[in-house]
This record gives sequence, C-alpha cells and structure tokens, in this order.
Amino acid sequence: MFSQRLRNLTPYVPGEQPQDRTYIKLNTNENPYPPSPRVVDTLTNLDPETLRRYPDPRFTLLRQRIAERYGVTPEQVFAGNGSDEVLSFIFFAFFDSANGGPLRFPEHTYSFYPVYCNYYGIDSERIPLAPGYRIDLAPYARSGSCGVIFPNPNAPTGIAVPLADITAFLERYPSDGMVVVDEAYVDFGAESAVALIDRHPNLLVVRTLSKSMSLAGLRLGFAMGNAELISALYTTKDAFNSYPLGTLAQLAGVAAIADAAYYDAVNRAVVATRERFSRTLTDSGWEVLPSAANFVFTRCPNAGGKTIYLKLKDKGILVRHFETPGISDFVRITIGTDPDMDACAAAIAECF
Amino acid sequence: MFSQRLRNLTPYVPGEQPQDRTYIKLNTNENPYPPSPRVVDTLTNLDPETLRRYPDPRFTLLRQRIAERYGVTPEQVFAGNGSDEVLSFIFFAFFDSANGGPLRFPEHTYSFYPVYCNYYGIDSERIPLAPGYRIDLAPYARSGSCGVIFPNPNAPTGIAVPLADITAFLERYPSDGMVVVDEAYVDFGAESAVALIDRHPNLLVVRTLSKSMSLAGLRLGFAMGNAELISALYTTKDAFNSYPLGTLAQLAGVAAIADAAYYDAVNRAVVATRERFSRTLTDSGWEVLPSAANFVFTRCPNAGGKTIYLKLKDKGILVRHFETPGISDFVRITIGTDPDMDACAAAIAECF
Repeated sequence: MFSQRLRNLTPYVPGEQPQDRTYIKLNTNENPYPPSPRVVDTLTNLDPETLRRYPDPRFTLLRQRIAERYGVTPEQVFAGNGSDEVLSFIFFAFFDSANGGPLRFPEHTYSFYPVYCNYYGIDSERIPLAPGYRIDLAPYARSGSCGVIFPNPNAPTGIAVPLADITAFLERYPSDGMVVVDEAYVDFGAESAVALIDRHPNLLVVRTLSKSMSLAGLRLGFAMGNAELISALYTTKDAFNSYPLGTLAQLAGVAAIADAAYYDAVNRAVVATRERFSRTLTDSGWEVLPSAANFVFTRCPNAGGKTIYLKLKDKGILVRHFETPGISDFVRITIGTDPDMDACAAAIAECF
Repeated sequence: MFSQRLRNLTPYVPGEQPQDRTYIKLNTNENPYPPSPRVVDTLTNLDPETLRRYPDPRFTLLRQRIAERYGVTPEQVFAGNGSDEVLSFIFFAFFDSANGGPLRFPEHTYSFYPVYCNYYGIDSERIPLAPGYRIDLAPYARSGSCGVIFPNPNAPTGIAVPLADITAFLERYPSDGMVVVDEAYVDFGAESAVALIDRHPNLLVVRTLSKSMSLAGLRLGFAMGNAELISALYTTKDAFNSYPLGTLAQLAGVAAIADAAYYDAVNRAVVATRERFSRTLTDSGWEVLPSAANFVFTRCPNAGGKTIYLKLKDKGILVRHFETPGISDFVRITIGTDPDMDACAAAIAECF
C-alpha cells in the first residue's frame, strides 16, 4: 500500500521537544526572550470573524511589510509555513540533477538539506569544510551543479561567511545555477546577502521568524529574490496547498516585522550572553568555534560530544549532539538567558 | 533555472478571496458563524512563552482530543496544515501508479485531486457520475487501480454517498489499494465512515476544521485510519517539514474539538437555512441537487452558470462557477446566514 516515494524516504530528526518544562532547553536554538508585545497584542485583540474566513493566499500585507523592512519589492517576497516549508518548495522548484548535476552544500550543515534531496530525488555533492570548520566558497563555483545552498552563518558550526566572499562567489558562479543563502541565524552577527538579489537573478535569501523573532511556535519563514523565482514558488505552493499560512501567522508576522527595535535589543542581549559564555568555556580550556549565531559549537579537551550531551542532560540541561563523523566530538549549545548559561557553565564545571 | 517538476505543474485555482468586505461571500464554503468562544478564549489568554518554543511535532494533545471525540486511538490520527496538506501527504505516501495503476476519482469532484496527481506524477482515471450526478461506487471496485478517493458528500454537487454503499464497496475493493473518504462536509448531513477504519486497514478518513468548525483561517485538518498508515504520514511530514502545525493551531484545534455542542447548534442552523433556501430556488423553477453539505449546486432553466455568476457578482453576491464541460450550467452557492440567503434569493428573483 506504500508508494515507492515513501519507501525511499529518510526523514529529518528534529531536536528533542520534551513537553514538560523541567529542562533548561538549549538544544533547538529557540530565543530565550518572548516575542514582541505587539505580537501578543495582535493575538489577544483578534477579531474571531477573521478565523471563519480563508486567509489571504497571497499574504499581501505581510509581503508589503517584509518588503519595506528589507528594502525589496513585494513581488520579491514569498512566505511559507516556517522556513523549512519555504526550503522544501525551493528544492522542488529549482534543484534538478537531471538538468544540471548535483546540488552542492557543505559537508557539515543543516541536516534537512540531504532529507529534501532524498524526498525530491536530487543528487548531492557535499563539499568538505575548510580548515577551522569554515565554508570556503571557491570549490562551489566549479561548473556542473544544479545549485548551491548554505546557511550563513553555517549550522551547526555558527561560523559566518563574509559578504565579500558571497559577492565574489556570485560573480563567478554560472548564472543558470541557483544560489540559496539560508539566513536563519543572520541577525545574531552575520551580514545579509539580501542587497545582492537585484544584481543576481539566481540568488534566493531565506529567513525565518523562529530564531531572532522568538516565534518558533508560529511557523513563519520567507524567501527574497528575483520576482520570477518568487512567482515559481507561488506556483509550487498552489499545487501543494493553497493556504499554507493561516491568518494568525500572517497577522502575528506583520506585528513582529514592525517591531525591529524590540528585537534588536533582544538579539543584542543574546549576543552579549554568547560572548560571555564563550569566554567562560575557553577559560576552562574548551574550544569554541567563532559564532555569529545564537548558539556555540564547542568541544572539551577530555570528553567526547556524546558524553557531554549525556552528562548535561543528567544535570537537567538539554544540548544538541550530532553522531556524525568529523563533528561528533562537538556539542551545539543554544544561547539562553544569562541565568540559563550560568547554570550550564556551572554544570560543565562540575562534570569536566 | 526551473526544474522539470516545476515546468510540469498545473496549480489549483482557489475561489476568489477579495480582501475587502463589500461582497456577500458565498463562493468558498466558509461557515457564516464565528468559531466557538472557547477558541477565542484560548487565543486571547495565550501565554506568549508558548510561541518562542517550537510546537509539539507529534501534536500529542490534539491527537488525544480528536481520538476521544471520534472514537479512535491517538495512533490512528494524523494532523496537518489544513486538510489540503493532509491530502497532499496522502497522495505522496500511498498513490503510486507504477505499482498499481491509476488513481480513481469522480469525474466531477474536488478539483485539487488532479492537481496533486500532476504534482506527484500519478495517473488518474475519472469515473463519470451516475444519473442525477450521484457517485455510484460499483465501477471504482474493479481491479487495476492504486487507490480511490472521493469526498462524502461530493463537491461541488453536495450529494452524499450512503454509508451502506461505502461499507459494501470496502468489502469488494482489493485490500492492497487505498481508499480515502474526504469528509470535509460530512457534518452538514452525511454519514461518516470513521467507524470502518478498524475493519479496513486500507481506509483513511480525512476531515477539516475549515467548514463545520468555522476555522478556515486557522489551517487545520486531520486524517484517521490504521496506525501503520498514520505512521507513514508522519514519516512523510518529517521529510517535508518537521513542524507544519504551529502552537496556535494546535491549541485552537483542541478548544474547537471540545465544543461539540456549540458546533452542532451552528451547523443545524446552516442546514435549516440550506433547506429553506433550496425550497425558494425550486419554487422559482431552479433545479437544486439534494445537498448534504453547506452549499447547494443549482441551475436556472433559462440562464447558464457563467451568466448567473456574473449577474450575482454585479449585485454584490459572490458564488462559484466552474467552467467545466458537463457542469458549466450550474453554480455552487455556499449557505450563509438567513439574511445572506434572503439577499441572494432577492437578487436571483430580480435577475432571472
């Protein structure tokens, strides 16, 4: 009764989401601060009439506000049910190995990319990281790929690619291959490539409200790029599910996008905590990769990643470990509040 | 830059969703009454903390409540971002023409089914309606198909298939083919097949909160069936988008499912209005198919469907017309409030 498509699947494994609140949860890169009060106001002042009607299938108001905020036009904005859905549609619409070769992405990166390749039957070519776990874009520029995707900053390393490198890469990359920069964590210290979309009609920049806007529970992500690419994403959406974004997500998204001042303050606090926590770790002899994200990727000189994960879990602190050759000695620790990170540092001091 | 997948697409065309409120909107089968006050309370008393966290990727509480309400187990429940997404995953996971032949569905039915076939590369076989625009399941039972899907009641006709016919059909249909009953409109007068899922491990029943629970703007649908089928839908979801249902949708869904008394009253009112409006139409000489849904499919003896649609739109009333051979003389009119339908009847009396 199962299709061949289903039998070929390897699903993504998200970080643990225990439904009780007993853990200090530093494993899925959630923002420790609540969403903007404007989001809460929007939801608590809701007109129930809005829910009996279908939502706007073109997200008109949300696209306008995103466009104003990021200096693009509404025709250059697509939105979806979390950036995971936006990415899924991008893989469907643009990456076609039969007409261009494999998709290139970093050997160590967001682990949903190979899952999408598997789902849509796309070949992949994983490019090893450069020394220091950096992304060096030079090997991605060779001909013979249907596209390139990488997060900036990368996950789970946290290391950013300088905008100058992306600019130089786009000048060299063949213009019929798609380049996707996944900026899920860009607001914590990397440089956005969004200003390059007018010059490069093969560039898509993807964002999420889950991390820097404290809205992981809302499910809202978006993509910015050339209007023709964006139009192809609407066509894809309209063949999969006409109304992927409910009215609440659209209205709450509008409210969040409008409150840049609140989120700038929140994310400055996250960055300050990250720098303080990183110093604590390096002072204890741990290696911490230079992070531009809301997490650090770190290892202990005398314990493996799995051991760190298990011992911290035992102490009530949930971090993320990847059982992946090459990075299995690291753990990824989300930056919480100062008290969260003090508790984490204390647990580390006790255990190692 | 576009994939072959994208170039093959024919997107679904939803009914018009004008963003101003000047029309009496009887074109997309929205419920004219607001959602349960419990839904509104849930949203207005929201703890903002819930939004900074990822939602439960397994919808634990929602599945429990759906299971209790419909007399199944939580392992027999899958939920998604509207029943359109649930249907999309069903087409992905179970319909495979290379291993079973075409998918069978009625010639005149929900127009997203052929769109999904196109999206996933599934062959289809459209079975003509029986006299009186009814679905006769006999021709669906022949061997040589990968599955069968039909709405009950059917759209856009509104005519229900008796449960006895579905029961008899399931006894005859080969057990390695999937049968999907799309019960989007079942609460307005048809009989649910959900009690048959234990006996038939190849049966899936799909529901939405968009129509009978007045929550089209929320995006929430679900499927009930054998636990192995449901597990395959979770695998599909986890390879496409881990978190398709936000926290607000899950919480509001729990509140709506709990308030059966409110919705029974609302939907009895819709049915009473439908019967009254249908009599008005037949008294004027119009043909009205016997509806078990929240809409009527009707035609005028002396005007085509397109003319009716255009003249009513001109009078401020939006109905749905399908430019499809065999049903193009009909219009589908959603049942609104009594005043909505009085206005519609008055406009019809003036024009025809």
